[in-house]
Amino acid sequence: MNPRIAALTIGNELLDGDIADSNTQRMALIISRQGFLLNQRISVGDDPRAIGEALLYLGNLNDVVIVSGGLGPTRDDLTAEAAAQAFQLPLKKNQEALEVVRRFFKKLGREMTPRQEKQAMVPDDATILKNDRGSAPGFFLRHQNCLFAFMPGVPQEMEFMLQHSVLPLLNENFPEAVPWHQKTFKLLGLPESNAESILDSLNLSDLFQIGICVKFPFVNIRLSLRDRKGPELLAQAGTKIRARFAEQLVAEDDETLVGNVTELLIRSGQTLSLAESCTGGWIAKMLTDIPGSSAFLERGAVTYSNRAKINWLQVSEDIFNGPGAVSEECALAMVRGIRKASGSDLALAVTGIAGPDGGTPQKPVGTVFIALADARKEKVFPFLFPGDREKVRFRSACTALNLLRCHFLKYP
Amino acid sequence: MNPRIAALTIGNELLDGDIADSNTQRMALIISRQGFLLNQRISVGDDPRAIGEALLYLGNLNDVVIVSGGLGPTRDDLTAEAAAQAFQLPLKKNQEALEVVRRFFKKLGREMTPRQEKQAMVPDDATILKNDRGSAPGFFLRHQNCLFAFMPGVPQEMEFMLQHSVLPLLNENFPEAVPWHQKTFKLLGLPESNAESILDSLNLSDLFQIGICVKFPFVNIRLSLRDRKGPELLAQAGTKIRARFAEQLVAEDDETLVGNVTELLIRSGQTLSLAESCTGGWIAKMLTDIPGSSAFLERGAVTYSNRAKINWLQVSEDIFNGPGAVSEECALAMVRGIRKASGSDLALAVTGIAGPDGGTPQKPVGTVFIALADARKEKVFPFLFPGDREKVRFRSACTALNLLRCHFLKYP
Repeated sequence: MNPRIAALTIGNELLDGDIADSNTQRMALIISRQGFLLNQRISVGDDPRAIGEALLYLGNLNDVVIVSGGLGPTRDDLTAEAAAQAFQLPLKKNQEALEVVRRFFKKLGREMTPRQEKQAMVPDDATILKNDRGSAPGFFLRHQNCLFAFMPGVPQEMEFMLQHSVLPLLNENFPEAVPWHQKTFKLLGLPESNAESILDSLNLSDLFQIGICVKFPFVNIRLSLRDRKGPELLAQAGTKIRARFAEQLVAEDDETLVGNVTELLIRSGQTLSLAESCTGGWIAKMLTDIPGSSAFLERGAVTYSNRAKINWLQVSEDIFNGPGAVSEECALAMVRGIRKASGSDLALAVTGIAGPDGGTPQKPVGTVFIALADARKEKVFPFLFPGDREKVRFRSACTALNLLRCHFLKYP
Repeated sequence: MNPRIAALTIGNELLDGDIADSNTQRMALIISRQGFLLNQRISVGDDPRAIGEALLYLGNLNDVVIVSGGLGPTRDDLTAEAAAQAFQLPLKKNQEALEVVRRFFKKLGREMTPRQEKQAMVPDDATILKNDRGSAPGFFLRHQNCLFAFMPGVPQEMEFMLQHSVLPLLNENFPEAVPWHQKTFKLLGLPESNAESILDSLNLSDLFQIGICVKFPFVNIRLSLRDRKGPELLAQAGTKIRARFAEQLVAEDDETLVGNVTELLIRSGQTLSLAESCTGGWIAKMLTDIPGSSAFLERGAVTYSNRAKINWLQVSEDIFNGPGAVSEECALAMVRGIRKASGSDLALAVTGIAGPDGGTPQKPVGTVFIALADARKEKVFPFLFPGDREKVRFRSACTALNLLRCHFLKYP
C-alpha cells in the first residue's frame, strides 16, 4: 500500500502573492524519487488557529503530513505552539532540540540568545530532527494514525531535513510501497512540439506516463511509471532517447548542462577562457557556480564597450566600422583574441543583440553569434533567438555551453 | 467585514514536483491589490473525491473559495463533476456555457467537437463566467454560506476571468471590505534577529502586522495593515525605517538592489568597470540583466587565474608571494588595475574564498575583500560571510553593489 501523504506549508508570504510555494514543489520532487507521491497540499498563514485546523484536517485524511515553516525564532513562528494545541499536548523545552540550537550557534562562534531558545519549545513526546544547515530543529510525532513531520521553511534546511530525516522515516514506516520510477531527459535547441513528435516515433513502452514540459531554455521529457520493472524499461527508453537526441540531450535527471560541461572540461585537462558581450558574464557566473572551476577557467572578459574589445581582445577597429560588433567577424576576432590573451586551450565568445533596444531590420533583437576555438580551428555559429532580453541572454549562455559539450562529443 | 477567502488549485502536476503552484501566487497578488487577502490555499490532484472533500472543507471555513483547474475538455478534467457531487446538485448541460465554448471555436474558425461540449456540463443553478482567452467557461455558485468561483487552470485564462468576473463579484458581495495596505523594505547586511530588535525600538504603530523574512541575502520587513489610514501610517513608518537603516535599506517594494544601483549609475553619468575573482562574473551578469547597462558598464574582468590578474590588472607578483590573492592588498591592486585599464570613473573588485575548498585557519571559507575606487580614492572592505559557495558568492556580489549604492549616498 502506498501511503497518503500531504504537505502543509506555513507563512503569510505564501498567501499574499509575495512568493510562490516552491517548498512544496521541492518536497514533492524529492519524495517522488523514492516512490512517494503527494496527495494534497495546503498552505496557511502564520495563524495558530488556521495551522491547527489544517493539521487536524490533513491528519484525518492522510497517513503522513509533512509540514514546513514557522519553526524559527521570531514572533510569527507559531507552528510548534499550534501543533501542541491542536494535538492537546503540552509545549515543552526539549533538551535535545536545545542542543541543536546551541551547537549551531557554537559553530558560528556566536552566543545563543533567549529568543533563539524558543526554537527548542516543541510538543511533548516529539522526536527531534537534526538541522545541519540552520538553527531551527525539526520534529516528528504521531497523532492518532498519522505521522507528522515538522521542518523549517528555509529551503536548504527543509531539503536537508527531508532527505536525511524524513525520507528514512517514510521508508521505515512504509516498506511495502510500490516504487514510482521516473527519469528526466533535458533537451536544448528544439521546440516542444518537435520533441513530442520525435518521441512518438520512438515507440516507447505504453506503460510510461510521458510528460513534456518547457523549463526554459530546456525542453524536459519525463517518463514515469509505477512498476517493478521500471528501472529496466527506463534504461531501454534511455538508450533510444540518447541515440536520437545526441546533440540536444544536454543532461539527465539531476544533472545540469553546466555541471556536465564542467565535468568534461576537468576530465579533458584543458583550460578555457571566455569573451562575453551580450551574455555579460552569465557564462562565467554559471561555470564558477560549480566548485572546481578554477581548475580550467583561466579568465573571462565582459567586453561591453568596443574599447574593451580592442584593448583586451585585439578586435580590429575595421570590424566596428564594417560588419559591426554583432557579426560573425567580431565573434571570431573575440574568440581568437581571448584565446591568445589567456593562452587557454579552448575559448568561447558571444556577441549579440539581447534587446529590448538595438535591433535593426538586418539584425533584429535575438541575433547572436557564438564562436568556439581550440588549437585546431575557430568556428562561429549564427543564431536568431526568440523572446525577451532575459531569454535571449540565457539561451545564448546555455547554447554556448552546449556547443562546448558537442565539441567534446566530437573530440573526446 | 473582510471575507475569509481560500484558493483551491487542481491538477496532478501540482503534486508531483513538476511545477510550482504559480496560479495561487498570481491570484493572491491580484486580489490583494483590491484589498482582499487569501486565508488559506489547497492543491489537490485530478481526483473527484479529493476535490469534493477540499471544496466542503474550505466552504465550511471561508466566505469565498476561488477554484482553478480541471474545467477543460480532457478526461482528467473533473472539477465540475466533483463540485456537483459534493454539493449534491445535478450536473447539467448549460446553454449559456455551450454558447461560450461554441463562440470560442467559431472565433478560431474550427468546429466544436463532442469532447469540447463536455465543458458546458456544470452543476445546476451555476452562473456562467465568460472566458475570452480559451474554450473553458467558468462558473460560480453559492453553497450554504459560501461563494464558490470556478476558473480554468491555464494561467492567462484564470487571470482574465479573475480580473473581469471574479473580482467584480467580490467587490459586489463585500462592498464594506476595508482595504489592505502593505509595504516591503529590503535590508542587506544584518541578521534577521537584529532587524527585529531594531524594529521593536522604532515604536511603529500597533496597527501594523509586521513580517520579517529572509530572501537571501536580503532580510525583508513587510508592514501590512487593514485600515483606511494605511497609506499615511505606512509613509510615517517608512520615514523612520529609512532614517534608521540608511546603509542597509537597499530597496523598497518592487524595487531591486541592482535596479537601484543601475539607476544611480545612469543618473550620475559615471562609468563602471569590474574585476571579479570569487564572484566569477555574477556582478557583471546582474548589472547586464538590466537594459541600459551598456550606458555605464565599460568592462568586467573575471580574473580567476593569477596570470590574468597580473596580465590585465597589473597586480604585482609580490602580492601573490606575500599577502596572497585573497587579501586587502590584492583587492586594492585589482580595483586600481581595472580602473586604469578601462579608464572608467568607478571600479569594483572582489576577491575571496567561496569554498568549499581553499579555506585556511587564517582565511576561512567566506573571507572576502571588496574594493571600491573612484578618482578620489580606493577603499577596501573585509568580510567574513557564512554559508556555502553559492551564499558566499551571492552575498559578495550584492554587498559589492550595496557599497556602490552607499558611495552614491555619500557623494550624490
